[in-house]
Amino acid sequence: MAQKKTHCDCLNTIKPVRDALDVISGKWKLPIIISVGVGNDRFTDIQESIPLITPKVLAKELKELEQHKLIKRIILGEYPVKISYKLEPYANTLTPIIYALKDWGINHRKKVMDR
Amino acid sequence: MAQKKTHCDCLNTIKPVRDALDVISGKWKLPIIISVGVGNDRFTDIQESIPLITPKVLAKELKELEQHKLIKRIILGEYPVKISYKLEPYANTLTPIIYALKDWGINHRKKVMDR
Repeated sequence: MAQKKTHCDCLNTIKPVRDALDVISGKWKLPIIISVGVGNDRFTDIQESIPLITPKVLAKELKELEQHKLIKRIILGEYPVKISYKLEPYANTLTPIIYALKDWGINHRKKVMDR
Repeated sequence: MAQKKTHCDCLNTIKPVRDALDVISGKWKLPIIISVGVGNDRFTDIQESIPLITPKVLAKELKELEQHKLIKRIILGEYPVKISYKLEPYANTLTPIIYALKDWGINHRKKVMDR
C-alpha cells in the first residue's frame, strides 16, 4: 500500500504570520496607522481621512492600537480637553508590511482589471 | 480664528493596502498559501497542517483563493477522483508580504513577552 505522505510542517511560518495578522488585520488598523503616519493627529482629521469609518469604530480601533503600543494618545490641554494621536516608534516596524501590501494591492487591481 | 487644518490625504496608500487585505486578510488565507507552498498538495494534508481549520472552511477558502488566481485545483484521476492543489505563479508575489509578516510576528511576540 502506498506509504501515506505525512503533511509538511509549516507552523513555524504560519504562527508568526498569524500573530502579525491578529494585530494588524481587519479593515481599519493599517489605514489608521497610515493616516496618523502622514500627519493626521486629531480624531476628526483621522476620521475624515478614512472613508466610511464611524467615530465609534475609530475610538475602539485607536484604543486597541494603543494597547499594542503602536499609537500614543496625548492629552494636550485640560479645559477644553484636547487630544492628539501620534505613532509610537514601534509603528515604524510596520512600514515594510505597509509598502509590501501597497505594491501588491496596486498590481492586484491591475491584474483583476486586465481580465 | 485659527485656520482649520485640513486632514492630510493618504488614500493613495490606504486604498491599495485595503485591496490587498481584502484578498489575503482573515485567519486562513495566508496559512493555506504557506501550507500549499511548502508542498502540501492534498486536501487532508493542507487541513492537517493548519490547526483548527475545518474541512468546510478549508473548502470555502480554497475556492476563494482559486477565484483570486492564487491557487490551482487539479483533477488527477477520474475514478476515484483525486484532487491536488498547487500555487499559481501569481502566488509568489505574496512572498515579500509573508516574510514581512513573519518577521514582524516573531518580533511582536518577543516584545509582548518582554513586558
